[in-house]
Amino acid sequence: MNTPVDPVQLTADLVKCPSVTPVEGGALQLLQDRLSSVGFECTRVDRGGIANLFARWGDRGHARSFGFNGHTDVVPLGDEAAWSVAPFGAERKDGWLYGRGATDMKSGVAAFAAAAIDFVRDTPPDGAVILAITGDEEGDALDGTVALLDWMSEQGEAMSACLVGEPTCPEHMGEMMKIGRRGSMTAEFIIRGVQGHSAYPHRARNPVHATARLADRLASKVLDTGTEHFDASTLAVTTIDTGNPANNVIPAEARMTVNIRFNDAHSSTSLSEWLAEEVEIIKAETGVDVETATKVSGESFLTPPGPLSDLIAAAVEAETGMRPGLSTSGGTSDARFVKDHCPVVEFGLVGKTMHQVDERVEIAQIVQLKAIYSRILKSYFA
Amino acid sequence: MNTPVDPVQLTADLVKCPSVTPVEGGALQLLQDRLSSVGFECTRVDRGGIANLFARWGDRGHARSFGFNGHTDVVPLGDEAAWSVAPFGAERKDGWLYGRGATDMKSGVAAFAAAAIDFVRDTPPDGAVILAITGDEEGDALDGTVALLDWMSEQGEAMSACLVGEPTCPEHMGEMMKIGRRGSMTAEFIIRGVQGHSAYPHRARNPVHATARLADRLASKVLDTGTEHFDASTLAVTTIDTGNPANNVIPAEARMTVNIRFNDAHSSTSLSEWLAEEVEIIKAETGVDVETATKVSGESFLTPPGPLSDLIAAAVEAETGMRPGLSTSGGTSDARFVKDHCPVVEFGLVGKTMHQVDERVEIAQIVQLKAIYSRILKSYFA
Repeated sequence: MNTPVDPVQLTADLVKCPSVTPVEGGALQLLQDRLSSVGFECTRVDRGGIANLFARWGDRGHARSFGFNGHTDVVPLGDEAAWSVAPFGAERKDGWLYGRGATDMKSGVAAFAAAAIDFVRDTPPDGAVILAITGDEEGDALDGTVALLDWMSEQGEAMSACLVGEPTCPEHMGEMMKIGRRGSMTAEFIIRGVQGHSAYPHRARNPVHATARLADRLASKVLDTGTEHFDASTLAVTTIDTGNPANNVIPAEARMTVNIRFNDAHSSTSLSEWLAEEVEIIKAETGVDVETATKVSGESFLTPPGPLSDLIAAAVEAETGMRPGLSTSGGTSDARFVKDHCPVVEFGLVGKTMHQVDERVEIAQIVQLKAIYSRILKSYFA
Repeated sequence: MNTPVDPVQLTADLVKCPSVTPVEGGALQLLQDRLSSVGFECTRVDRGGIANLFARWGDRGHARSFGFNGHTDVVPLGDEAAWSVAPFGAERKDGWLYGRGATDMKSGVAAFAAAAIDFVRDTPPDGAVILAITGDEEGDALDGTVALLDWMSEQGEAMSACLVGEPTCPEHMGEMMKIGRRGSMTAEFIIRGVQGHSAYPHRARNPVHATARLADRLASKVLDTGTEHFDASTLAVTTIDTGNPANNVIPAEARMTVNIRFNDAHSSTSLSEWLAEEVEIIKAETGVDVETATKVSGESFLTPPGPLSDLIAAAVEAETGMRPGLSTSGGTSDARFVKDHCPVVEFGLVGKTMHQVDERVEIAQIVQLKAIYSRILKSYFA
């Protein structure tokens, strides 16, 4: 039996790497060194100035290939003067480990890397263990997990199931896992009318009036009241801007941005169609022209409750005593990319201080998380 | 019989004075010299850096005191390079006299000054003729006609009727006079909600949604369908601004400006009360706070059709063959100040090129306008 990898020390070593997106900061290199030494085949999949690491133990394309996904990049420090510790110091105090990335998500990466190393050394499975770790999750994510997945497809690399190690528990370790996420899309509208004098509105066509009505119609729409596994879809008009300083002038143009977070009752296509219908109504009622540009950050997705979520829930319950709820709440994560390739779920520790000053992780949770990930690997390959 | 004053030459002399608000430019001094020489008692009523001229022929406080009101200040040149003539050159070409202020309203001032001078010299009336001429009509008008009227009240000076010589004819000389104006007010709203993440709108309070609904409610309201002498009141939301660049953030605040042009079915007080009611509805529906600031440029007013308008209409018809329509259209004019002191109507020439590059007046119209003003004086004192 080999000495097990200490996930707390590995977390601390990773926190000491100043890997603010898009800087690699030594974090992926550190992991590559550790993984290579126990037989993982490691490849740096760098793209667009972003460093990413692909590591596989076992045969390429094996039918039982369990993957972990995570990131070593971290958000900026914010108000550095407000930190009570060195942000990259990995200081331990009263049972906590401090530093940028301590919860989001160097502890998660350390926990699954430690679990994977121990597992392949101690009980080499009939299958493959894959780690797909990106340096571009906190940025615009164009050259991160997407680059890894593109490269994997080209190379014939595949995961049969994937666990994303992001923090998922709101308050207590073990209480929540995620089996999907709402989608997110943004629509930008330019509403064009006819400029004129405020005293003669009948000679003008006021784009602000049209924008207000469109905004009110969109904001008033109940998209749904939630579905079996999802909260209700939401829509927020995030800005309306005209920039007209003259109160005796009706302006020619107004702009509006709308953000929609949508569940599996919708798709970006169905929502774009609905927006286009609403725009047509406003055009017909007011005579304005409307230019619409939509950007889809991610479709909603769901890995329906089944063998993978059961396996992970059982492992969490065995280690923590809590049966995790199956949630689809929260913003987006890289699971939105992975879901096109294999079933994906997310489980990690409590993320309360992520992105904050004095970000910190309870040391006991790192140990527990490694134990959970180890149990998941054992169960999966049993 | 004295040689009549040439109103075209006087217009040209005035155009040559570069009197862009607030600069006097020699225009009022020129008038003062001409008026003094025939017995007008002239007083410069300067206030707040603005020059104004009060001139009276006849006894102070006479029961029959006919007044003319006008201004010698002009708007800026705009794109000076686009002018085909020297803007202060008073060039005459093909029957037109060119220059900034040629229509708005140095020709009007020249016409009534010429008419008044001839009238008091040739047929001295039993009464008073007053000229109240300001250098601050195109500016914010705080120290212009208001300063003259304030001073007149203090001094026991009064007009029993007043004619404002602004251009009033849309296309043809004689077709329109004005017996009132709609009021104008502007309301600025700051709508405050609670900032938050677009993915969790239930934890925020979106001020953009509240603003859109308030704007749509206000814009949809039919204030009235016009009254006996007035067009319908109108409301224009002239700008909504948020300035939120982040589509994943619900902003804390939005701003909106509304301009209302209102007839005699309303007052700024009744409209302010209505706006406050609408704000309360939105606050109750959405939970936002709303700060409202209103600014009243002028109340609506009407000099009901009667002896004064009849007298002026008859004079116009006698000189032009057209019976002028009694209108209350257009923006604001200094008549909004005069109406608190005596019956006031407006009549002047065609104002098509006012405020434009190559502003110009048809020379024949200046002659006609002087003839009309002369006939008005004769009729009034007959």
